[in-house]
Amino acid sequence: MSASPPPVRLKLLIAYDGRPFRGWQSQATKDAVQDFVEAAFAKIVGERVIVIGSGRTDAGVHALGQVAHADVPRDRLPREKWQSALNATLPREIRVLRATRARGDFHAQFDATGKTYTYRVWNDSFLHPLEIGRAWFAPAPLDIDILRAGAKLLCGTHDFARFAVNRGQPERDAVRTIHEIAVRRRGPLVTLRFTGSGFLYKMVRLLTGTLIRCAQHRAPLSWIEELSQNENATKTHFAAPAEGLYLTRVHYGSKAAERKNHG
Amino acid sequence: MSASPPPVRLKLLIAYDGRPFRGWQSQATKDAVQDFVEAAFAKIVGERVIVIGSGRTDAGVHALGQVAHADVPRDRLPREKWQSALNATLPREIRVLRATRARGDFHAQFDATGKTYTYRVWNDSFLHPLEIGRAWFAPAPLDIDILRAGAKLLCGTHDFARFAVNRGQPERDAVRTIHEIAVRRRGPLVTLRFTGSGFLYKMVRLLTGTLIRCAQHRAPLSWIEELSQNENATKTHFAAPAEGLYLTRVHYGSKAAERKNHG
Repeated sequence: MSASPPPVRLKLLIAYDGRPFRGWQSQATKDAVQDFVEAAFAKIVGERVIVIGSGRTDAGVHALGQVAHADVPRDRLPREKWQSALNATLPREIRVLRATRARGDFHAQFDATGKTYTYRVWNDSFLHPLEIGRAWFAPAPLDIDILRAGAKLLCGTHDFARFAVNRGQPERDAVRTIHEIAVRRRGPLVTLRFTGSGFLYKMVRLLTGTLIRCAQHRAPLSWIEELSQNENATKTHFAAPAEGLYLTRVHYGSKAAERKNHG
Repeated sequence: MSASPPPVRLKLLIAYDGRPFRGWQSQATKDAVQDFVEAAFAKIVGERVIVIGSGRTDAGVHALGQVAHADVPRDRLPREKWQSALNATLPREIRVLRATRARGDFHAQFDATGKTYTYRVWNDSFLHPLEIGRAWFAPAPLDIDILRAGAKLLCGTHDFARFAVNRGQPERDAVRTIHEIAVRRRGPLVTLRFTGSGFLYKMVRLLTGTLIRCAQHRAPLSWIEELSQNENATKTHFAAPAEGLYLTRVHYGSKAAERKNHG
């Protein structure tokens, strides 16, 4: 018996409109983004292919640059054909922006050294019709200086357990580093761009909802300090809605890559 | 019997996502944008209000700045309340961006001195998921120099009958002036911004479809010249799809306004 040749690992860069899907992570109902990507592979190669993403996104959350990996049978398709084959099979709300061959030990989740999320807030007396499902409609006036000051308090390394929803059991290690929260206003559109080492479950939405509450003068800035520094503080429950959130980029540090290459 | 006080004329600036509606113009099926705006007024004032737009947009065409006027009973609502009252009643895909009191003889259609339309073309091997319904997916390579040269040929005053679809009977006067067609590429997004004195039925979509065909090297530039100058040329049938088209602005010249003000 001849052993079958080792598979080829693909790295996928994926964008999706989060609205039609029950988040990234595979569901029994088979209506998550991961389910559709796995189904597309299965249709192309004729057998089950497991797709591993960099992490979950909730139902309704969009992705501009989700990353995943998958092992596919060698020589099943020329490497430059995977992107178009997948896109021809996927629902149009999911697109593979890039499909490249990766090292055999590349891992979309474990090798990620950080992530960037963008949150879009529509701050006007009405929601523009072309922003439906793409931004959080928050009509009350926003104090951008407060937003920036709160963002500054959150940057750095903190235990972010009060900015997380427990999935089953409490997070054992909720220490994360936020490198930057860039706040920008352009007319009615306020964007918050979070870059950090990693984010807990619902963390970006809880950070955003809590910051916006302060910027609406409905809570003091000291609350942000309390939440990020006092382990006994009550968790915040002000999560901004999913529709304003975009997974913008997954970072893979060059150092990690080098370490792997050189053993 | 006391005569009822004269009505007040409102000028509305309206944005809509064209997808859910059968165009601007009122339909027997009551699913056009005009129908919804009239229904919102009727609900607020308790009687029929006729809404006159600057012109039609086709099913699926978006508007960032459609203009309309309507006569409403005097003193029914404080003038600053019309916008929020209409938006509270309209489907969320239609928003009144501004509602102001206009002169009693202001006419959204007849006073318009020009219009600006923007057409968005997505020129990449795949359509980005957040561009579904918002751009024309045209994957074949585009020669932007040809697009600009063709645009230049179309500017000025011409008989545009070969760039129009007849509605019932032929247009008697198809002479229009195009002031500018601004062509811009930003990554995969190519935009054409048309500003002119007025546009015939389906004209912007026929101009765009024909220009794109030349820019794909599937027709020579001389065809554009032929269509715009030879009255006996066969009409073009290459209409770009509705979903890429946006009515961006309706122009009301200050001269026309002055003329009216001073009789």
